[in-house]
Amino acid sequence: MFIQNAWYASAWAHELTKDDFLARKILGKGLILYRKADDSVAAIIDRCSHRFAPLSLGRREGDCIRCMYHGLVFDGEGTCVEEPGRKGVSPNTDIRSFPAIERHKLVWVWMGDADKANPDLIPDCHQNDSAEWACVPRYASFKANYLLVLDNLLDFSHLSFVHENSLGGSRTIAEINPKVEQTDKGVKMTRWYLNEPGFAPYLEGHERFEGAVDRWNIYHLSTLSNHFSMSSGSAPANTGAPEGKLAPETMVFHSNQLITPADEHNTHYFWVYAHNFALDDANLTNSLAERVSAGFVEDRTMIEAQQLVVDESEGDQMAYTHFDNGLTLGRRLIDRKIAEEKTEAAKAPEAVPA
Amino acid sequence: MFIQNAWYASAWAHELTKDDFLARKILGKGLILYRKADDSVAAIIDRCSHRFAPLSLGRREGDCIRCMYHGLVFDGEGTCVEEPGRKGVSPNTDIRSFPAIERHKLVWVWMGDADKANPDLIPDCHQNDSAEWACVPRYASFKANYLLVLDNLLDFSHLSFVHENSLGGSRTIAEINPKVEQTDKGVKMTRWYLNEPGFAPYLEGHERFEGAVDRWNIYHLSTLSNHFSMSSGSAPANTGAPEGKLAPETMVFHSNQLITPADEHNTHYFWVYAHNFALDDANLTNSLAERVSAGFVEDRTMIEAQQLVVDESEGDQMAYTHFDNGLTLGRRLIDRKIAEEKTEAAKAPEAVPA
Amino acid sequence: MFIQNAWYASAWAHELTKDDFLARKILGKGLILYRKADDSVAAIIDRCSHRFAPLSLGRREGDCIRCMYHGLVFDGEGTCVEEPGRKGVSPNTDIRSFPAIERHKLVWVWMGDADKANPDLIPDCHQNDSAEWACVPRYASFKANYLLVLDNLLDFSHLSFVHENSLGGSRTIAEINPKVEQTDKGVKMTRWYLNEPGFAPYLEGHERFEGAVDRWNIYHLSTLSNHFSMSSGSAPANTGAPEGKLAPETMVFHSNQLITPADEHNTHYFWVYAHNFALDDANLTNSLAERVSAGFVEDRTMIEAQQLVVDESEGDQMAYTHFDNGLTLGRRLIDRKIAEEKTEAAKAPEAVPA
Repeated sequence: MFIQNAWYASAWAHELTKDDFLARKILGKGLILYRKADDSVAAIIDRCSHRFAPLSLGRREGDCIRCMYHGLVFDGEGTCVEEPGRKGVSPNTDIRSFPAIERHKLVWVWMGDADKANPDLIPDCHQNDSAEWACVPRYASFKANYLLVLDNLLDFSHLSFVHENSLGGSRTIAEINPKVEQTDKGVKMTRWYLNEPGFAPYLEGHERFEGAVDRWNIYHLSTLSNHFSMSSGSAPANTGAPEGKLAPETMVFHSNQLITPADEHNTHYFWVYAHNFALDDANLTNSLAERVSAGFVEDRTMIEAQQLVVDESEGDQMAYTHFDNGLTLGRRLIDRKIAEEKTEAAKAPEAVPA
Repeated sequence: MFIQNAWYASAWAHELTKDDFLARKILGKGLILYRKADDSVAAIIDRCSHRFAPLSLGRREGDCIRCMYHGLVFDGEGTCVEEPGRKGVSPNTDIRSFPAIERHKLVWVWMGDADKANPDLIPDCHQNDSAEWACVPRYASFKANYLLVLDNLLDFSHLSFVHENSLGGSRTIAEINPKVEQTDKGVKMTRWYLNEPGFAPYLEGHERFEGAVDRWNIYHLSTLSNHFSMSSGSAPANTGAPEGKLAPETMVFHSNQLITPADEHNTHYFWVYAHNFALDDANLTNSLAERVSAGFVEDRTMIEAQQLVVDESEGDQMAYTHFDNGLTLGRRLIDRKIAEEKTEAAKAPEAVPA
Repeated sequence: MFIQNAWYASAWAHELTKDDFLARKILGKGLILYRKADDSVAAIIDRCSHRFAPLSLGRREGDCIRCMYHGLVFDGEGTCVEEPGRKGVSPNTDIRSFPAIERHKLVWVWMGDADKANPDLIPDCHQNDSAEWACVPRYASFKANYLLVLDNLLDFSHLSFVHENSLGGSRTIAEINPKVEQTDKGVKMTRWYLNEPGFAPYLEGHERFEGAVDRWNIYHLSTLSNHFSMSSGSAPANTGAPEGKLAPETMVFHSNQLITPADEHNTHYFWVYAHNFALDDANLTNSLAERVSAGFVEDRTMIEAQQLVVDESEGDQMAYTHFDNGLTLGRRLIDRKIAEEKTEAAKAPEAVPA
């Protein structure tokens, strides 16, 4: 079950070229994604209307894709523009296309009702391509339902255990109680770890000051696009960071993470971990990407194993603990939105085509 | 769903020897196929009646097979002829056998009602072992339902795209409209491509004349045994080939192809591609087999990928195009025959044993 | 379907250490097995109560296991003893533990109603650690339902065929009719093969006398714990072995075999093959273990292949032969006990927790 009426990250912009295409599954549907001659991006279903051959075995021809089974040709709007052996085309040969927009180095698709695909709803990931931030675009794939990935993000107590020697490094993370707020788009979490004896392990060798550290993770998870937007940082202890006064040697990071369901069992993960200091230090930029990526491998190991246990636990009830305010709120918002979309669909005069 | 009352190709004759056996699944049933001392062939179910051990872990003993779990012995008619430790055998220990006949280098089995297994119904594949034709027996296996394989054969427009650089080589194949005829056993398709600039790519190096070519594919698909019987050829253009006048340098081929369902998800493919000229040119015979086989790999890649999309498309409707007269007729004939067999089975006093 | 109220072998004692744990599935449930500081053994469910993360990704901390997702800690009784970030723990965070006892080098668990877990019911496997016997503990895993493994043990006629060149070596095994007796705990089988020309092949090189042999296999299969307890031996022919007079050169063996369902599709197999002569001959002890193990590989090949055929044969009836008295009785006892447990569970005021 997915929210349909939302923009989902489907690819990094650099993955789409003008002479080829990318096949990727989004919300259970196989898509063909490509860049047209005018630089705009196209998203059409990876299925010929004729005999259901996958267009991903097809051929790019200009701004179109030719099915290489019997030769039908489709443009970026899904219109069948050629059927060999006749003038014009047979009825019902058009295929579904999806609104697709490139922004902030990402290609966003709208899988729901195209009439509602308002570009203003695309999440703000401006740090991805801002001159004030440096980062590397990264991708990972999890063999798990996206909700388990969101749960993970909405309970950072796991940093103390899953990421004991990488992103966490302090028992405090699990011991403090974060501030949890509902916003109009999702859930905001605020976590301060004051006067910690040192930095998180993943910053080893990159420290900009010595002594005790005030650390924070303040993030928002939009439950529409599954956009996780996090400010985190490390400031010299007792210099006023919690009140907004950032000493010059403070290390501030911004992470955009986009969690897109491939299907019920697989999840795409697009992310950056950007820094807004030492912008020319490519070594730092790359080191952060590598070390955070190693942390995500720790998450993936845990979440994929958790998924297997969850699959065998149908009908059993998880225990509710004090950790769970954030993820419970997140799940409630998603459930409510999915229910709303179902109600709307039931009222609609005709269903969205496949 | 399969037509049961028909002869299906189950093996090449050379696969069966007098001291071993072959295990192969036909219409969803595991069979043991072997050759007896008198050269006749036997087909029995690959399942001991006692504890359902597979006889394919058993041992050939004369014209019988011994189950190597507890030692029961079965002859080629499925009769249990030995049960160690007692005189005679226990009741209900016989297993099912199937009518099996060797003809035209193929071993044909009848999986339906044995009373109806009339050898006269075995398809005519005389080119397989005729002195007037030369060919090599070949086998392939497709991970797809047999209907998708038959669809492929009943729409040769795919030669222009799937086989662009092998069996096809001309856009004309997809652009002409074939003649489609219903016969008493299936579907006949007639395709002429006149005055083509050259031969199909798979004949490169084997051309017998220069200049423009009249090409044809005229074939019949029997929907009973899934026997595809095709005459094809290349004649010097404008020498009267369409009217039946074949210039001496004309290259004529005959292909017999037998598409046998292994189960709902897998299909056996037995085929020859015979020529009736240059009969002593073993290089030509082998080259044709190799190049046509490469073409079938192209088919397999497409059809297996199509099957995956079809599996995810339950309930969705394919678009009907002008290509589809042949395959639609073929599917209708098969559906009708399966329905007839069901009606008959419902009337029958007792069902066919497993 | 399993009998729940019985002790099942879950591990060899040496598999459990004081600084680690073992994850193993028993009767469909993932367990964490470990040894505590006081040498006692613990068995808890391999699933954190909080978000169903597997504890097998957790960490041993003293006599407890910490879940390495969010840090909850469980003791060997399944009690949640720590939840980071709060005093005490949240409600319903305890997990299920299982009675577990080490005896005769095996770790026994009771998956059913803990109130009924009477240690007196643990099967007698005293040969495993007796000074009068020598043996090596062995383990195998079968991809098959446990009932097919029990069937195998309750019909030794298979020794003539499956083990023709290893454990059997004589057609007589399949040809004699064993004595089959129902006991209060299961099935007893008695098989004598008198005046055989030689030893079974697996004893080659270990023979203690020359000439004809009286062989026997006398065993009991408890259908509660699936404990197969077998006396077997080879005595000089006509020296009175069947009447209990054992000549000094007689070779006597005792095999304890514990068949524990992992789940419906996989079975654990713990076994020893002990000898009570030449106790210091380590070469003999190891040779017996290796050769009997090779015999079990023969069983596994047959049973796993049989399982695949059984899976495709739903609804079909196996033929009943004269071999089947023992296994039919065994299956009837198991079916009856499972039905009794269901009836009891339906009457119970509340079901056993997951």
